[in-house]
Amino acid sequence: MQLEFLGTGAGSPGKFRNVTSTALRLLDERNEVWLFDVGEGTQHQILRTTLKPRKITKIFITHLHGDHIFGLPGFLSSRSFQGGDEPLTVYGPTGIRDFVMTAMRVSGTHLSYPLKFEELGQDGVIFEDDTFKVSFEHLDHRIECVGYRVEEADHPGELQADKLKALNIPSGPVYGQLKAGQTVTLPDGRTINGQDFIAAPQAGRTVAILGDTRRTPHAISLARNADVLVHESTFGKDEGKLAHNYYHSTSTQAAQVAKQAGVHQLLLTHISARYTGKLSKELQKQAQTVFKNTKVVRDFDLIDIPLPQKA
Amino acid sequence: MQLEFLGTGAGSPGKFRNVTSTALRLLDERNEVWLFDVGEGTQHQILRTTLKPRKITKIFITHLHGDHIFGLPGFLSSRSFQGGDEPLTVYGPTGIRDFVMTAMRVSGTHLSYPLKFEELGQDGVIFEDDTFKVSFEHLDHRIECVGYRVEEADHPGELQADKLKALNIPSGPVYGQLKAGQTVTLPDGRTINGQDFIAAPQAGRTVAILGDTRRTPHAISLARNADVLVHESTFGKDEGKLAHNYYHSTSTQAAQVAKQAGVHQLLLTHISARYTGKLSKELQKQAQTVFKNTKVVRDFDLIDIPLPQKA
Ligand SMILES: [Zn+2]
Ligand SMILES: [Zn+2]
Repeated sequence: MQLEFLGTGAGSPGKFRNVTSTALRLLDERNEVWLFDVGEGTQHQILRTTLKPRKITKIFITHLHGDHIFGLPGFLSSRSFQGGDEPLTVYGPTGIRDFVMTAMRVSGTHLSYPLKFEELGQDGVIFEDDTFKVSFEHLDHRIECVGYRVEEADHPGELQADKLKALNIPSGPVYGQLKAGQTVTLPDGRTINGQDFIAAPQAGRTVAILGDTRRTPHAISLARNADVLVHESTFGKDEGKLAHNYYHSTSTQAAQVAKQAGVHQLLLTHISARYTGKLSKELQKQAQTVFKNTKVVRDFDLIDIPLPQKA
Repeated sequence: MQLEFLGTGAGSPGKFRNVTSTALRLLDERNEVWLFDVGEGTQHQILRTTLKPRKITKIFITHLHGDHIFGLPGFLSSRSFQGGDEPLTVYGPTGIRDFVMTAMRVSGTHLSYPLKFEELGQDGVIFEDDTFKVSFEHLDHRIECVGYRVEEADHPGELQADKLKALNIPSGPVYGQLKAGQTVTLPDGRTINGQDFIAAPQAGRTVAILGDTRRTPHAISLARNADVLVHESTFGKDEGKLAHNYYHSTSTQAAQVAKQAGVHQLLLTHISARYTGKLSKELQKQAQTVFKNTKVVRDFDLIDIPLPQKA
């Protein structure tokens, strides 16, 4: 599981940062990649990575501002142009379907794969299967905007073969039964309960990826105990008033969310063109005074999210 | 007057060529720039040039395929973001207004300048003022597609001051009257007709910029005697059948249009990713066997269009 940042700028594309798009690479976990927002030029950025468009099976849109969606029609078209029929689902606020389907209709584009839309309603779970769950809550932006929380299911504990071997229980089909938690009677008469030989489950990982927002308690609940929080930092610490007026956050507000939510790592994105080069390090330092494990990400940064250490 | 190529590829953006957009720089002539087609990422390309978005006052769309229009909402938004209230007019096939206005509405974008649309009807003139005229004709593509012909008005002949001085007519306000073609009686009694001292008018320039098309007589009439013809060359000379099936042209078909129309220079664009690097030179060589003054253009090529030499 990795985060790959395809666009980390705010508002308009700049020379150093493209508009927003974040890829959650779940190749080991699901052989899939999920995109969060698709600003204009996202497909161009993807050309410079190892990402395969056909592996992108879900797209989550935080809000409908142009710098978060104008790359969607082109990405969807090129994904089709490259062939393949893997379905793709777009999740996002009401209006995303109208935007995409108008572009497809007007341009006479016929996709080679099934495209589904799930427009957001009340805060809650929008996707869940055996291994992953995605939920969302509304944030506080000028237009409807949400944050997403992606939770990996716990990995079942492994069979402790060492302990079994220490008891002279020979490996074989019986190990499978024990691993499934069954109670087994051995040829020598001993009765063994598999539950006693299964390690504690490995906690799954949680990533919170938020759209543009002012300070809101929903940011904290979305990020609660997450391994990684991706949060905007359009403004610097002394620009709280600007941030409020423009429905954005400052570097230190983002850090307060990280701290209050008890996350492991904070990644700051949606950086204004006013903070180029070394100035973006200022945002990072400001945030670090509140929450140490903070990084301002750049386009093409790849952040690994390891399984948490066992207690 | 120059042509600046912002995107010279076909279908999808590639590493070396972006999707279509061509800028006609009329800075000396009108202090304006006109764009022809706006594929995704055109605003990113513009960042790498000296073009100022607010100077772009007219956009001509040849057809509504995604690789020719998906950069339009983002360009229009960023032009607004940068401030300025210079009006902008978009010309193109019916549907272009629906596409743009849906994107603006869904994204909650309010432009800082007046945006007008002129959707195309019957072939003819769509813009004309004292110095420039733009007309269009329909081409033969899978969807409605046109080519544009931009004609500069003739420059009025200059006053031949040398000849007047040779006749001992002193410079002064009388030169202005003569330049205006008036007949003037001098203090010494001589009567001078300004018409006799005005050089022949300097012919204006003509540029034809065509959308994607199969062979069609309309390409020839659009390009008739043009200084420059910008024509697609999606396929190579031995791919006439493919070109026909996909409603495109080969390199030599484009050259035949240039030859039959009697243009001065042929610029080939809309180059497929199958013709990268040196292979694109092959397309150029193929075309040159039919029409010598041919060039395959690349992204950021700047082609000067000088006033034609006086006869
Ligand atoms: Zn934004
Ligand atoms: Zn095209």
